[in-house]
Amino acid sequence: MKVRIGLIGCGVVGTGIVHLLAQNGERIAQRDGVELEIAKILVGNKDKPRKGVDPALVTDRLEDLLEDESISMVLEAMGGVDPGLSYAQACLRAGKHYITANKELMAKHWEELNAAAREGNATLSFEASVAGAVPVIRMLTGSLRPNNITSVMGIINGTTNYILSQMDQFGTGYKAALAKAQELGYAEADPTADVEGFDAAYKLCILCGLAFGARVKVDDVLREGISKLSAMDIEMAHELGYVIKLLGIGKQHNGGVEARVHPVMIPKTNPLASVGGPFNGVLIGADAAGDLMLYGRGAGDLPTASAMVSDAINVAQGKAAELVEFTPALVVNDFSCGYYIRTLAADTPGVLHGVSGIFAKHGVSIESCVQKGQGESAVPLIFVTHKSREADIVRAVAEIDQLDYISIGSVIRVEK
Amino acid sequence: MKVRIGLIGCGVVGTGIVHLLAQNGERIAQRDGVELEIAKILVGNKDKPRKGVDPALVTDRLEDLLEDESISMVLEAMGGVDPGLSYAQACLRAGKHYITANKELMAKHWEELNAAAREGNATLSFEASVAGAVPVIRMLTGSLRPNNITSVMGIINGTTNYILSQMDQFGTGYKAALAKAQELGYAEADPTADVEGFDAAYKLCILCGLAFGARVKVDDVLREGISKLSAMDIEMAHELGYVIKLLGIGKQHNGGVEARVHPVMIPKTNPLASVGGPFNGVLIGADAAGDLMLYGRGAGDLPTASAMVSDAINVAQGKAAELVEFTPALVVNDFSCGYYIRTLAADTPGVLHGVSGIFAKHGVSIESCVQKGQGESAVPLIFVTHKSREADIVRAVAEIDQLDYISIGSVIRVEK
Repeated sequence: MKVRIGLIGCGVVGTGIVHLLAQNGERIAQRDGVELEIAKILVGNKDKPRKGVDPALVTDRLEDLLEDESISMVLEAMGGVDPGLSYAQACLRAGKHYITANKELMAKHWEELNAAAREGNATLSFEASVAGAVPVIRMLTGSLRPNNITSVMGIINGTTNYILSQMDQFGTGYKAALAKAQELGYAEADPTADVEGFDAAYKLCILCGLAFGARVKVDDVLREGISKLSAMDIEMAHELGYVIKLLGIGKQHNGGVEARVHPVMIPKTNPLASVGGPFNGVLIGADAAGDLMLYGRGAGDLPTASAMVSDAINVAQGKAAELVEFTPALVVNDFSCGYYIRTLAADTPGVLHGVSGIFAKHGVSIESCVQKGQGESAVPLIFVTHKSREADIVRAVAEIDQLDYISIGSVIRVEK
Repeated sequence: MKVRIGLIGCGVVGTGIVHLLAQNGERIAQRDGVELEIAKILVGNKDKPRKGVDPALVTDRLEDLLEDESISMVLEAMGGVDPGLSYAQACLRAGKHYITANKELMAKHWEELNAAAREGNATLSFEASVAGAVPVIRMLTGSLRPNNITSVMGIINGTTNYILSQMDQFGTGYKAALAKAQELGYAEADPTADVEGFDAAYKLCILCGLAFGARVKVDDVLREGISKLSAMDIEMAHELGYVIKLLGIGKQHNGGVEARVHPVMIPKTNPLASVGGPFNGVLIGADAAGDLMLYGRGAGDLPTASAMVSDAINVAQGKAAELVEFTPALVVNDFSCGYYIRTLAADTPGVLHGVSGIFAKHGVSIESCVQKGQGESAVPLIFVTHKSREADIVRAVAEIDQLDYISIGSVIRVEK
């Protein structure tokens, strides 16, 4: 079966799709009976030269895609919500199946996209929007359907994982690691969306929608980036048997969902701990299947193209997933985890006694306590707590910070 | 849509399916629109009590399934090829979609099953046959379709992985680790199928069929088990930065396929190295998507049931994968990898000179050489080679073993 597709965007991922079809299109046609042919490519600037791309296919008018009735599906690899949303709506309403890598669009406008898809009787596929080539969307909408999903926990931003891996392996500071990531093309000139956790938050919204059927909005996600992490905390994590990762965490609660993106200390034995460099890894907790992990390339031209083309084959064969039905999520801020609390304290008798009293008062139980160095005017004093309520920690930390012989250096959540 | 299913076998996995549907059947009906109802359960002994299983459904006559026209699909969780093959053929020919966890049947009789499926215009699904809940089949037949798969490498037998993990962590000998595995139910009373690599070989045949479209027969797989591994080699692996795992390895060559199951030393940094205990992990190399790993529970009642029920939902929705088309595989025995060679040698001058001459003569390049202990009559002398041809190693090792001042203790392949 010949399938004519429209392509929106012809940057890294868009050209990746063109190259992938040139490379493996024949194999796909033979094995899966689906001959994918690019009919039109919509771009901002028609005149920019693009290697391996037939200029005759390139247009800057959306209408050229919409009005071409031979085009049954559109692959969007442009990104952004403006004009991303209006393009998607127009295509879907025109009955064109839509395949997108656009996590921001999905996270912010999922309802509108679903509505447009219903109007046009079209399907919406978005495997490439989370973790690139790693088929986590397919796993949640396919293989794990017999399960009640209890949690998703993932390294879903390659940029920050690369930066943290550099800091961890080479003791590099945050700024130097970011510069290296920018040099290698893993981080953008303005790295905010990655390092402050926005990108991961978009992806977490998508994962929560699929895993829990709960519509978590971007603003509902507790979000902290990695820009304030110190080399010292990364080193201390090591000493204590942990690694620091920026995780997206979603957990199902009775009547609510926990959704947060922030740096987390995880034990070195956690399968996510060995996901290094620009790789992505997602750990899923399912009631029947147990814990499952997926690991692979979370970005890049061909990995992302692979995810989008696999969606296209599915759509062509009538195997696309149904539109996701979800209910508004009650996002729960009252959650519990372990906490690493680094303080700077006077090395005098009675400090531990005073601080531990405050922890006890707020119901926080201490798992370990380490003092680094001795005899100087102030020394690092580090606490790791047992599982505690976030609210209790906030209160205890605020009270400790009032004491004149101790100050709070950093607080990092710990997941066992 | 209500779907009535027949179940063959009601042991661990069969009852797992019954329990899973009782637990999550309503959720599946609501979310995926597929109401799975067990119509009949075929067992060997009707009178055996089975917890949670309605005795009215139980039968010992295959005809009761075949003749019930309301049954559109059959889930087989019985295992074995006799009567597994005839049951499967009868169901498929009767037009009943067949979903099986039976790796031995798939590996030995895939062609016959395909033929019966074509006759009956039915589908054949087998996600549960490899790595339990880990959706590696779905990944190869779905998400990775845009790719040329270059390699599969996996820990696909939980029993041996548990035994090796015990030996590795606690310095336990093979026999004690096996006894522990038997005590915990991870190994059977007769552990041959697992520890000698037959089970992994069956699964590798299935993976090669999907990944390369090449029909590898069980007898074509180079197969070695773990029963001859010594605690010393496991300890030495550790010292050298490796872990020993029983791997199934399939690689695509020009015009051929490499298919082998044997103990392998892999670097501790390999993502498979951290797959411990009874878990399974499969690493797939794909030309566009890059390296991907899946990790999870490779066996057990509910994990296996989850895989089978997910197949059932797919079948009900008309989303089952097509029958696999394959060509006979030319299985290549001329492959290359690294080698760990432990010898026992006289601690006298000239030994290294003599041995290294033999390696050089056969084109084998040495990466490292370690002598353990000193001054005794004979000491362990260990070589790790660079990537070498298996045939060259065989010749070099045979020649070295002829020398009177050195004998070969063990040879273990190394994959970087």
